[in-house]
Amino acid sequence: MSRRVAAPLPVALNRESADPLPRQLADSVRSAVHRGALTAGERLPSTRALAADLGVARGVVADAFDQLIAEGWLTGVRGSGTFVAAGLRGSIADGASRAADVAAPANIGRPAIRLDTGTPWLDERLRAGWSRAWRTVAAARMPAGYPDPRGLPELRAAIADHISRHRGLACAAGEVLVTAGTAHGLALALEAMPSGPVAVEDPGYRAAVATIASSGRSVVDVPVDQEGIDVESLAAAADDVRAVYVTPAHQHPLGFAMSAGRRVALIAEARRRGAAMIEDDYDSEFRYDVAPLPALAQLDPERVIYLGTASKTLGPGLRVGWLVATAAFVDDVGGRRDARHDAPPWPAQRALLSMLDDGYLTRLVRSARRQYATRSQVVQSALAPFGELSGGAAGMYATLSLTRSTAARVARRALADGVEVPLLADYCRTARRGGLVIGYGGVSDVDFASALNIVVRELRAESAGR
Amino acid sequence: MSRRVAAPLPVALNRESADPLPRQLADSVRSAVHRGALTAGERLPSTRALAADLGVARGVVADAFDQLIAEGWLTGVRGSGTFVAAGLRGSIADGASRAADVAAPANIGRPAIRLDTGTPWLDERLRAGWSRAWRTVAAARMPAGYPDPRGLPELRAAIADHISRHRGLACAAGEVLVTAGTAHGLALALEAMPSGPVAVEDPGYRAAVATIASSGRSVVDVPVDQEGIDVESLAAAADDVRAVYVTPAHQHPLGFAMSAGRRVALIAEARRRGAAMIEDDYDSEFRYDVAPLPALAQLDPERVIYLGTASKTLGPGLRVGWLVATAAFVDDVGGRRDARHDAPPWPAQRALLSMLDDGYLTRLVRSARRQYATRSQVVQSALAPFGELSGGAAGMYATLSLTRSTAARVARRALADGVEVPLLADYCRTARRGGLVIGYGGVSDVDFASALNIVVRELRAESAGR
Repeated sequence: MSRRVAAPLPVALNRESADPLPRQLADSVRSAVHRGALTAGERLPSTRALAADLGVARGVVADAFDQLIAEGWLTGVRGSGTFVAAGLRGSIADGASRAADVAAPANIGRPAIRLDTGTPWLDERLRAGWSRAWRTVAAARMPAGYPDPRGLPELRAAIADHISRHRGLACAAGEVLVTAGTAHGLALALEAMPSGPVAVEDPGYRAAVATIASSGRSVVDVPVDQEGIDVESLAAAADDVRAVYVTPAHQHPLGFAMSAGRRVALIAEARRRGAAMIEDDYDSEFRYDVAPLPALAQLDPERVIYLGTASKTLGPGLRVGWLVATAAFVDDVGGRRDARHDAPPWPAQRALLSMLDDGYLTRLVRSARRQYATRSQVVQSALAPFGELSGGAAGMYATLSLTRSTAARVARRALADGVEVPLLADYCRTARRGGLVIGYGGVSDVDFASALNIVVRELRAESAGR
Repeated sequence: MSRRVAAPLPVALNRESADPLPRQLADSVRSAVHRGALTAGERLPSTRALAADLGVARGVVADAFDQLIAEGWLTGVRGSGTFVAAGLRGSIADGASRAADVAAPANIGRPAIRLDTGTPWLDERLRAGWSRAWRTVAAARMPAGYPDPRGLPELRAAIADHISRHRGLACAAGEVLVTAGTAHGLALALEAMPSGPVAVEDPGYRAAVATIASSGRSVVDVPVDQEGIDVESLAAAADDVRAVYVTPAHQHPLGFAMSAGRRVALIAEARRRGAAMIEDDYDSEFRYDVAPLPALAQLDPERVIYLGTASKTLGPGLRVGWLVATAAFVDDVGGRRDARHDAPPWPAQRALLSMLDDGYLTRLVRSARRQYATRSQVVQSALAPFGELSGGAAGMYATLSLTRSTAARVARRALADGVEVPLLADYCRTARRGGLVIGYGGVSDVDFASALNIVVRELRAESAGR
């Protein structure tokens, strides 16, 4: 990236205004980026130089910069200065068209920005890969007849390869079943498993609980701590619990990785009670601190049914995911599937095959990983003052622990300003945790910055009010 | 179509051969079409002229022509002569590549030709429409987030329009839910309906029975006659039967249309017992005798859940269909769908929208209707000597009634020659009907002709043996 020192900033501060000076300065810089007077990669003057330039205390500039970094407009690189963040100009256009959507009658009442945990950021610079995949479908003939209920053979092989490269989980094409995503994979797996209640993490992934409940099974809630599902509580559950649904790579929604010790204990407990484990590995392509721990499925391939998805890399609209288990289980699930005929469409499978084959998906993952790592840092620096943060080392969301009432007030006020933030309480069934789950995948840089700004403002108001 | 009288046929008959003269003549004509010496639309000499030409009895030529018409190589138009059938040259290439597939190791043991009832014929001349639709997807951005579980709003509106034009069933976009096909639509409908057994037609559609059984409900078999489901038998069923699954437009697999009187009686019975009706209208775009009767859903829109599919027009690999019911029911089904996240992929929905919008689907239906009408005639003339035929007035299959043992022997021998023909017995649960279900959609002209030829040969052998 080419970087040049910015010309003297086009800033006019009004000392008579009721607005504090740091906010005035932040507003000026934000608006300069907005109208293109400051562009991506430009280096800003040092706080010392700018303070001297404007005739204000250095703390005023430092506060303004901190705010803008928290909002994502600027990035601070320790030891080498402060820069205008990349990718903002394209995002401003995105923001404008989104605003136009919201203004349309059909969208009245819908929040302008949703910080949800399930929508990925897609690097627009890689768009050609998407087009290439669908042009392959356009040029192909769809095979006559019903597709193999286990999925296209070539796609199953490509997914096996993808999982082994990205997750170190060695598996064969015959052990892969193509699904419509992790919730669908869970539903299919449950149909092929002995009846009885299913143990889940609490707090946990809401869609999975809904899937289990709609399969007619009861749900047994097991508490979670920083190491993962509480195996002692699981051991105390009734004997007829023969299935456990877990998110070891990135506990949903607390964001912890299950520790190695806990994995061993969980497998021992599952063996003791003759239970199967369902491992939902929904976003494990994205990890920013250390290499991910091996999948649970690697430790006990006979007992673990592994679920993955393209929803977190290509978007949930594609509705393609995978289930990895023994070939016998995969064939059994495939056989049952005839009753619904709900194997993913051939074109969607063919397109994903092309995206895997030509490296598009790998490039998309690599680029999103960089973006999330940056956003995770921004969330960390913006929210750490207000409570304990977890989950930022992986995936596309972080969870801020707060009291339930504080979280509810902040979420309500943010919503009034057009920002929807999920409450941790909504992921709890018997657990009594409070907090906010800040998803930062499916938003543009500008939306991310403004939404985070609003959340920070409300958190500040809470701190001040206490 | 340009038609010219064929030059004297390049035929040499060998009177010393053990092969009967009609077969020798048929072989010569078939091979002339194969190598292009006779081309589509060419008129053949009259039986009288050709017999004189070759110095054989007129019956020899008539027999040979009958055989070739039965095989689909020739078409006989009453009063205007005999012609080489259209579309044979392209199909010969298809046949060759299929043969290559079958020779590949992975395909050993798979029948060369499947006369199944569920695969459509697609007019290759219209291919550009398919490509256009997927290029639209290639150029589009997939919306972020999970798709509306009821389907894309624009697609729901386009389907409502399609159904009202092709089926005269007036409905609004809000009454349409996008599914993965009729079996999937049935599964979704059952989830939203009160529990209890479901009455089905016997013989009936096997996938529907599997869907009902896998939903945990019991299946109540109701006999079928030429007018449709036997309403008196239904009236005798237990009171807790509150749902009836029927195929009124084209009873699967017998092929009768439900009579108007029976429709009225069925609705009266459903009202009496407070039951819902599920109308599977799987192939009603294709009707060759008279305009189709209005959908059952038109007679009682509050009580009938209507299911349709693109599988029978675009192919089952697309996995898109629709359910039409009250808006309240559609919204309820959409809400439940969150538990599986199995709405069709956005790209498949977007592509179907394009195919509906630009008239591709309508052109495909029109062309396939012509093709099926011709094939239906061919089947009629080839198989009528062997038993009662039903179902040829619509759709893409006809059913030949035979004793169960005759049907089983013919099917077994045909399979040994690489042709798979479904047995009527396989669609029966308590009914004791025998016969063959001859699907003529998903095959090339040449495969259709050879498969029919083999079935006719085995039926002849049966007649001779008796």
